Amino acid sequence: MSRFWNRQVHDLQPYIPGEQPRMTNLVKLNTNESPYGPSPRALEAMKASVTDDLRLYPDPTALALRTAIAEQEGVPVECVFTGNGSDEVLAHAFRALFRDDAPVLFSDVTYGFYPIYCQMFGLDYRTIPLRDDFTIAPDDYDGPAGGVIIANPNANTGISLPLPAIEGLLKRFNAQTVIIDEAYVDFGGTSAVALTQRYPNLLIVRTFSKSSGLAGLRVGYAIGSAELVEGLTRVKDSFNSYPLSRPAQAGAEASIRDTEWLEQTTTRIIATRERTVAALRERGMTVLPSTANFILAHHPSCPADTLFTGLRERAIIVRHQGGSPRISDWLRITIGTDEEMDALLAALDDLLPR
Amino acid sequence: MSRFWNRQVHDLQPYIPGEQPRMTNLVKLNTNESPYGPSPRALEAMKASVTDDLRLYPDPTALALRTAIAEQEGVPVECVFTGNGSDEVLAHAFRALFRDDAPVLFSDVTYGFYPIYCQMFGLDYRTIPLRDDFTIAPDDYDGPAGGVIIANPNANTGISLPLPAIEGLLKRFNAQTVIIDEAYVDFGGTSAVALTQRYPNLLIVRTFSKSSGLAGLRVGYAIGSAELVEGLTRVKDSFNSYPLSRPAQAGAEASIRDTEWLEQTTTRIIATRERTVAALRERGMTVLPSTANFILAHHPSCPADTLFTGLRERAIIVRHQGGSPRISDWLRITIGTDEEMDALLAALDDLLPR
Repeated sequence: MSRFWNRQVHDLQPYIPGEQPRMTNLVKLNTNESPYGPSPRALEAMKASVTDDLRLYPDPTALALRTAIAEQEGVPVECVFTGNGSDEVLAHAFRALFRDDAPVLFSDVTYGFYPIYCQMFGLDYRTIPLRDDFTIAPDDYDGPAGGVIIANPNANTGISLPLPAIEGLLKRFNAQTVIIDEAYVDFGGTSAVALTQRYPNLLIVRTFSKSSGLAGLRVGYAIGSAELVEGLTRVKDSFNSYPLSRPAQAGAEASIRDTEWLEQTTTRIIATRERTVAALRERGMTVLPSTANFILAHHPSCPADTLFTGLRERAIIVRHQGGSPRISDWLRITIGTDEEMDALLAALDDLLPR
Repeated sequence: MSRFWNRQVHDLQPYIPGEQPRMTNLVKLNTNESPYGPSPRALEAMKASVTDDLRLYPDPTALALRTAIAEQEGVPVECVFTGNGSDEVLAHAFRALFRDDAPVLFSDVTYGFYPIYCQMFGLDYRTIPLRDDFTIAPDDYDGPAGGVIIANPNANTGISLPLPAIEGLLKRFNAQTVIIDEAYVDFGGTSAVALTQRYPNLLIVRTFSKSSGLAGLRVGYAIGSAELVEGLTRVKDSFNSYPLSRPAQAGAEASIRDTEWLEQTTTRIIATRERTVAALRERGMTVLPSTANFILAHHPSCPADTLFTGLRERAIIVRHQGGSPRISDWLRITIGTDEEMDALLAALDDLLPR
């Protein structure tokens, strides 16, 4: 607390990201990073961007990157917005595209940053409980709303919502922006990008941090109608004209054009996930059906915090969100390499009751 | 305009940065970039950061970079805040550290982003006219204030405010945050960083985009009391936990440690500036006394827009801010290499009346 702060800052409760420990030889399964490096072409493009030209500002409109995304996704370039990680894109979207005359709607179990953005931008929100099986109940989204945001696949659960349900929400909330956060869509979900050309109220948010293996570069993007993108651009240009560095624009552009590499790495991660889910279920764990690069798992008799601590002692870090009531007895485990998942399974064999 | 936008977005009038033309063989003197590339050690560090480790999130606290800045500036690390360019740092500072119960005070001629941040964050502001000689009149800063911001050297004019005047403002506005934006301080100004250890209401904002030749990397920082930095950090962590990529953290850290390189390049730029100022005055131009890497110049009989257009036809781009009444007949000219300034002088010899 400080007398120099704006009064609204006193009430902020910032997001706490998963830890980035400095230990080596760690099996790091806590922040849903890719176990594989980025596309070799992205590495090459970034290295090529590290020249004396860094003395010059980058393109404030990131036109080459936005063009690459537009071509890849089959949408006009004016329907593409880019930012410094999808967190920045989401922040601008909450600020620009959600109205403050009614609560923003989202699930009670989802990405923990959503309520924080609401607090930051003075928006009310209302959480809609997931069903007992942790799926989203689209019919429960109803009544006055300043906007709707759904992570698909959902954060923490990994469960996907089918496109017809999303289309239903777009029709029901046709006077508000509906954001679909597709951070994890490349691991087996179905993208709603095609719907952006029919629903002017739909904004898709994506990231290079997960399937593209570029969490350390900080690039995210959004796809939506030109009018939504124009609102985002106004807010961006009232905050920071140049959010993306030259290496970031170059690396992300090369990455999105390397579709073969994306296909290969996501296929590997999906195969490792399916094998891991089966192995955990064999060990008596409940695992939600994931279409993401993580799984949410629970053991009927061994508490999540006991497992979390035991894994940590064995240099395996997973995510345990003790403060979220409905998943406080669950562990969120990132899908790593096959070797990393074998290490996880061996550690669990130590820890779980026989 | 769109019915999906938040109502506040309709009124935003975003900042328009100087153009980044795609033409080649251009003498680009319009956005105050360094004519010299970044430190070779910074280039090396950035290249070394482009590895498979980019799959991992960067350090959200940028500890190594903040430590390097703290060591260089002689302040504790908890007094250092970093962000995605000084524009982001300024945006968070307006949001976190200016109060909304009275207007924010700044000059009528200064960085054009200040009124836009006020609009973005719902802050009133009051502009204080510069004196006729374009210097800041510290005594005119008075009355109720939600905060004060001064660019030193001032944006657009290049004129410095002496430290005793800043100290006077810090005492007068001891219940508000006073921000000193030192983007251009390395070109002959005097930094107020030492005062941060005596005045808890002082925040210094700096950038790697000018003297460090890293505009294309997007790194800025702030130095102030731990309580101001804590406020900034709360806002940052409610917006984007990881604003700085791995290459950005690595490059900026190596850059700030290379003090010899900074000394050499700023000395060269200052020498080129002094030579250019003398040559422009010989040609009958009025040039304000600059301690920055740009100069503001005016000709008594040749209108600024005529010169701007004539220079542009000769592939020399300078900044002409026709929309700012007091400097609408002035040109802001970045100090480039000696060769670039010779090209400018030759073009002016063509354009100016004999």
